[in-house]
Amino acid sequence: MATPVIIFDTTLRDGTQGEGISLSVEDKLKIAQKLDQLGVHYIEGGWPGSNGKDIEFFHRSKELNLTHAKVTAFGSTRRKNSNAETDPNLNRLVESGVTVATIFGKSWDFHVHTAIQTTLEENLSMIYDSVKYLKSRGLEVIYDAEHFFDGYKNNREYALSTILKAEEAGADWVVLCDTNGGSLPGEVSEIVADVCSKLHTPVGIHAHNDCELGVANSLAAVQAGARQVQGTFNGFGERCGNANLCSVIPNLQLKLDYNCISDEQLQSLTSVARYVSEIANVSMPVNQPYVGAAAFAHKGGIHVSAIMRHAKTYEHIVPELVGNKQRVLVSELAGQSNLLAKAQELNLDMSIETNQTKHIIEKIKELEHQGYSFEGADASLELLLRRAFGDITDMFSVESFKLIVGKNSGSSISSEAIVKLKVNGESVYTAAEGNGPVNALDNALRKALLPYYPDIQEMHLSDYKVRVINEKDATAAKVRVLIESTNYDNTWSTVGVSENVIEASWEALVDSIRYALIGKTRVELPDSQTERIGLVNH
Amino acid sequence: MATPVIIFDTTLRDGTQGEGISLSVEDKLKIAQKLDQLGVHYIEGGWPGSNGKDIEFFHRSKELNLTHAKVTAFGSTRRKNSNAETDPNLNRLVESGVTVATIFGKSWDFHVHTAIQTTLEENLSMIYDSVKYLKSRGLEVIYDAEHFFDGYKNNREYALSTILKAEEAGADWVVLCDTNGGSLPGEVSEIVADVCSKLHTPVGIHAHNDCELGVANSLAAVQAGARQVQGTFNGFGERCGNANLCSVIPNLQLKLDYNCISDEQLQSLTSVARYVSEIANVSMPVNQPYVGAAAFAHKGGIHVSAIMRHAKTYEHIVPELVGNKQRVLVSELAGQSNLLAKAQELNLDMSIETNQTKHIIEKIKELEHQGYSFEGADASLELLLRRAFGDITDMFSVESFKLIVGKNSGSSISSEAIVKLKVNGESVYTAAEGNGPVNALDNALRKALLPYYPDIQEMHLSDYKVRVINEKDATAAKVRVLIESTNYDNTWSTVGVSENVIEASWEALVDSIRYALIGKTRVELPDSQTERIGLVNH
Repeated sequence: MATPVIIFDTTLRDGTQGEGISLSVEDKLKIAQKLDQLGVHYIEGGWPGSNGKDIEFFHRSKELNLTHAKVTAFGSTRRKNSNAETDPNLNRLVESGVTVATIFGKSWDFHVHTAIQTTLEENLSMIYDSVKYLKSRGLEVIYDAEHFFDGYKNNREYALSTILKAEEAGADWVVLCDTNGGSLPGEVSEIVADVCSKLHTPVGIHAHNDCELGVANSLAAVQAGARQVQGTFNGFGERCGNANLCSVIPNLQLKLDYNCISDEQLQSLTSVARYVSEIANVSMPVNQPYVGAAAFAHKGGIHVSAIMRHAKTYEHIVPELVGNKQRVLVSELAGQSNLLAKAQELNLDMSIETNQTKHIIEKIKELEHQGYSFEGADASLELLLRRAFGDITDMFSVESFKLIVGKNSGSSISSEAIVKLKVNGESVYTAAEGNGPVNALDNALRKALLPYYPDIQEMHLSDYKVRVINEKDATAAKVRVLIESTNYDNTWSTVGVSENVIEASWEALVDSIRYALIGKTRVELPDSQTERIGLVNH
Repeated sequence: MATPVIIFDTTLRDGTQGEGISLSVEDKLKIAQKLDQLGVHYIEGGWPGSNGKDIEFFHRSKELNLTHAKVTAFGSTRRKNSNAETDPNLNRLVESGVTVATIFGKSWDFHVHTAIQTTLEENLSMIYDSVKYLKSRGLEVIYDAEHFFDGYKNNREYALSTILKAEEAGADWVVLCDTNGGSLPGEVSEIVADVCSKLHTPVGIHAHNDCELGVANSLAAVQAGARQVQGTFNGFGERCGNANLCSVIPNLQLKLDYNCISDEQLQSLTSVARYVSEIANVSMPVNQPYVGAAAFAHKGGIHVSAIMRHAKTYEHIVPELVGNKQRVLVSELAGQSNLLAKAQELNLDMSIETNQTKHIIEKIKELEHQGYSFEGADASLELLLRRAFGDITDMFSVESFKLIVGKNSGSSISSEAIVKLKVNGESVYTAAEGNGPVNALDNALRKALLPYYPDIQEMHLSDYKVRVINEKDATAAKVRVLIESTNYDNTWSTVGVSENVIEASWEALVDSIRYALIGKTRVELPDSQTERIGLVNH
């Protein structure tokens, strides 16, 4: 029977302290739902004492009817030289209507003197009174001992006395925080073991990643007796972030045989992690452990040929255990094996050592040399391979396009696109407006194709990225545009490269529509109709 | 006297196995020079056996006259059932002209059977013969025991016998590799300690980050007796990357009192890390420990007021020790304290609680609500603050701009921009071409302003980023453009937001030039001259 470890998620509170991370109430509600489904035990939703957005979150979170997680609100101990009953911050916690309050207090004598500027005795009373008051209001209380490890190293006796006070006042959990993220696994494990020997209350760990040791410190604490881990999804958080639960959970569960969430829930880890970074609008590093797009991606030719024999040769776990999957990257480092594996994926009969294979590899190397990257553009690569195999016929060709963007002071900006295509031998000539250049081009392209290919109605662009390839020349440099498109059941990415961001976007746009049209049948338009919709230009 | 730990950098070899990372020979030479200045002991430049690019690197690296680091070439043990003297791969190492060869061999019986498909005995001979041969050619030999930890856990006796063979053949170093990155600090430390008790040869560690423990495992190995750490800058590398030397080095040196590089060299860590990610054209995560832009950035109001009292309250080290610096972020989470700190930075006399201060905070919140982010656009924020303080007068105003981008099949794409400005009461009307829309706008803007502000000759755009703010609407969504500009002594960033990528770029472009012109004097043009250069339009 595996020892259970309680997961406390603070993505919605500490996570939003990270640079560039900001979540609306809507965003927080959506994420809370996902976290509940994943099986985390506590969801820290915010700090009602600090802003109204968080008060609204706690109000609305009741409508979520979470099946598993308890929602908790964050706050600090009472103000110095006042009393708990009348403390606005503590009462906000009570009014927020949560059943669990998480409050932090000072453990580090230096902070008591420097940051809150009071006496060591008063700080002890602040902790005692605050926990006691919240307990008297019927709340479960999680006590976060801020800067505990720095405090312990500076003044062990005092740091211990602060958490003993919290225990004495009835705290349900004592969580040791490495607030500045400066501690190392060795000291964390010693200190946690010492604390566990002194307290009867269960102990938790709240680690930060300033030494790139947030995950290691969390594991060390659990191995030394901690039974709750606080962290965030994707390691969001102040400065270098909090302990990354996307790595902590699988490490505890798959490597150390602790029990955090069910195996089924663990299989949704990757999708939840990606959902959170999408909602937070922060692009996930491809190399993020366990859940990143490259976590099980293989590039080196030797590695690829080995994993073709047995995945275990270069994979530390089966990717599906965390809902991720193996990928083979086609790149200039690649031997033929990568490309062959890719062709296999597409059921293209590509045999080794043929001139055709050599030719395709040359072509890809040449394109990568120009700045294309197919690692993030599977659809463009598939189009390239299918074309090489004569597996698709182009459904339309582009004769010309023109874009006009203009603004007069005062008036709002306008974007118009004019496109001329050849579809089924007919030359289609049309124009459209858009709220941006790419949107105008997209609209004109669809307007021209829709009568022939009604299916494109279903697809839309879901992401648009621009990367300057050679930053030295800035606006005169080459740019790579990646476009992600989706329809009801699929998502695909295409790439365009040019010194001109519009041309690169156009290339990716055209590819994404071509990809969507693979296998779709064209509607034959009677001239009458094409006349009517005024597309055909004789 | 601190124990020395040898730093082996493999950014140029293992690092290039990372998704999206590709380095030209030029890039590699530039990076090698920086690494040498930083004080790393070994620079692994590539695998001459695998591609010609690397052979050229070793050839040209001799011209670098590195003062400190030894350049080493990577390769594998001899092929099975052949002999070392005639092995092409081993001879490439010899021919590459390096003084140090790094070769890897198999430690994991499973790999011997599955990947190279030979007998355990033959694998031992492959190791012995290869090391012996390279030694006989006068090379220093670093033996990388691939998959050592997995091998040890699966068949301890055999794994140990492989490294004893390498020692017997005269290897100068035995480096234990956690190739799949699946090991945990506890087991790493036990296994390294066991190995150190069995070998006379110095031991090294080569860790990967698949469990987000690459740094922790490297530290654990050193604490258990390893004296060489292999890793990459910014943790580049296959899948989830290698151990990140940007965190390993300061952790060893500042936290554990080992000696890797000099204190002066450590102070260039941040600049070298950023240089490497710029050359590799991979944007560094803002929250990267020690060297990231947010590593010492403070956002929460409470934290900011505390660090104003004493930085140690929320910083685990003095940022300058690694060449980084403290930053205060202005964001919707910010209390006034953040903005006041920022104003202090700019020597603007901004006093708390004034209506002006409140007004500015409101303004910033409103803009952030619209999608602006000043965290990455200090220059735009400074312009905003200076305007609020009437500290600058605008040097020009924009009356209108128009952009035309067009392409006919076959012909190449064209971009033209027409701008109408008011400078010093004169209306300046001009047009320019560019190799892209932003470049065309930039050229037209400079053409119009240059006669009045010759100083803008010195500045140029150094980076251009586009971020889709709300991905749900894709091309119809709002985009945020960040532009970085530089002149000889400065770098500054500006931001523009719009549903139209051209308008957002224009806004950031205009701000970046306005910022450059702060404090610059305008040249008064005699009508005759403005007539001559055909700018003024009566």
